[in-house]
Amino acid sequence: MNAESRLAELGIELPPPSPAAGMYVAAVRTGNLVFLSGAGPTRPDGSNVVGKVGLDEGGTVSIEDARHAARLTGLQLLAKLRDEIGSLDRVVRVVKLLGMVNPAPGFNRTPAVIDGCSELFIEVFGEAGRGARSAVGMAELPFDIAVEIEAVVEIDPTT
Amino acid sequence: MNAESRLAELGIELPPPSPAAGMYVAAVRTGNLVFLSGAGPTRPDGSNVVGKVGLDEGGTVSIEDARHAARLTGLQLLAKLRDEIGSLDRVVRVVKLLGMVNPAPGFNRTPAVIDGCSELFIEVFGEAGRGARSAVGMAELPFDIAVEIEAVVEIDPTT
Amino acid sequence: MNAESRLAELGIELPPPSPAAGMYVAAVRTGNLVFLSGAGPTRPDGSNVVGKVGLDEGGTVSIEDARHAARLTGLQLLAKLRDEIGSLDRVVRVVKLLGMVNPAPGFNRTPAVIDGCSELFIEVFGEAGRGARSAVGMAELPFDIAVEIEAVVEIDPTT
Repeated sequence: MNAESRLAELGIELPPPSPAAGMYVAAVRTGNLVFLSGAGPTRPDGSNVVGKVGLDEGGTVSIEDARHAARLTGLQLLAKLRDEIGSLDRVVRVVKLLGMVNPAPGFNRTPAVIDGCSELFIEVFGEAGRGARSAVGMAELPFDIAVEIEAVVEIDPTT
Repeated sequence: MNAESRLAELGIELPPPSPAAGMYVAAVRTGNLVFLSGAGPTRPDGSNVVGKVGLDEGGTVSIEDARHAARLTGLQLLAKLRDEIGSLDRVVRVVKLLGMVNPAPGFNRTPAVIDGCSELFIEVFGEAGRGARSAVGMAELPFDIAVEIEAVVEIDPTT
Repeated sequence: MNAESRLAELGIELPPPSPAAGMYVAAVRTGNLVFLSGAGPTRPDGSNVVGKVGLDEGGTVSIEDARHAARLTGLQLLAKLRDEIGSLDRVVRVVKLLGMVNPAPGFNRTPAVIDGCSELFIEVFGEAGRGARSAVGMAELPFDIAVEIEAVVEIDPTT
């Protein structure tokens, strides 16, 4: 997997991983799998995209901004994954995402929001970045972040 | 596992797998495990069971209809699993379900809804179909579907 | 892992595992991993902590009581895990928690609630108890319980 050179080609620099919001770690490796904690949409300045998604439904975050928030969340996941395994070139494939959106009541285009993260992963890992997925709406997310995504990734243990 | 002959005995014909609602695949295999994306309650005519669950709570889907929707969702999961691994006879056991209900506010009999899927899996796989599970209520599900379920399944890699 | 002697030092006696609320089992082992079903906050008398979390947001359960409910939930998870694997000394590490809070609308300090479970696991397993985690708010939890937590745990298959 040439994910690191792909990142460079795309001009993507991964952000510093955000600190944990409680008593947990960002990632745990077990065998060939890495389980990544739910990450949030941290902007380059360290602030988070917050608010309910769906302007037509009374929220404060547009679907376009939410989709970008999902991409920011994906960058956090990649940063935390690299922190755990040293190089994204060790990724065999993205196994599973649980994409969690913070919807205004009635906003249910949650897959289009989480596509912002999936698209990033496909840019970086090719078709190996297209994992299994659920993309659903939660009642509340921590500190009102607009999007939270957790992931399971398969890595090559021999590299 | 004689799941395919069980299906035939039960007179169950699996539906065509529904298309993905975004940038993901229906299933990913890693080692002995298959991670299945969240599936929805697609009827034989291709439409989905939509709406909030709980008539007494102001929803439009009865608990009985929601339970049937969970069974339809289970049929989708089986169809997608067979698509991935070729034959359901390779299933060793259902490991884990995350059952997600779209409740009207106050409807919390979510386990009874998801039992509609679990019952199907036990019919098809016997006690190996009785996995670990959570059955909870989400704020929103994609396109207002009444039920969404994702699964982890263990398969025999040698068959 | 000396988790059993740690439990004794801490004066913690695990409760009887609560019965399943539907057609599922409390735990499934696959390879080195144990997937635990979502457990709830069962008190020593067998009743559950129920209600929406967040007094300031109109709920009936304070954040302190919810955090204690998460600890009770953790005790249930440990009881069910021991039931499955015989001794908690076989635990290699806590891999992943999905912590689900039943929030009053607007209560989003969900990580502080789930810390009640994580803290217990760190007391019992040391740093191996600090897993990956998401801690989010659901629209409804079964029977209105205040907290539900599911877990993935790595065990030593040779002991």
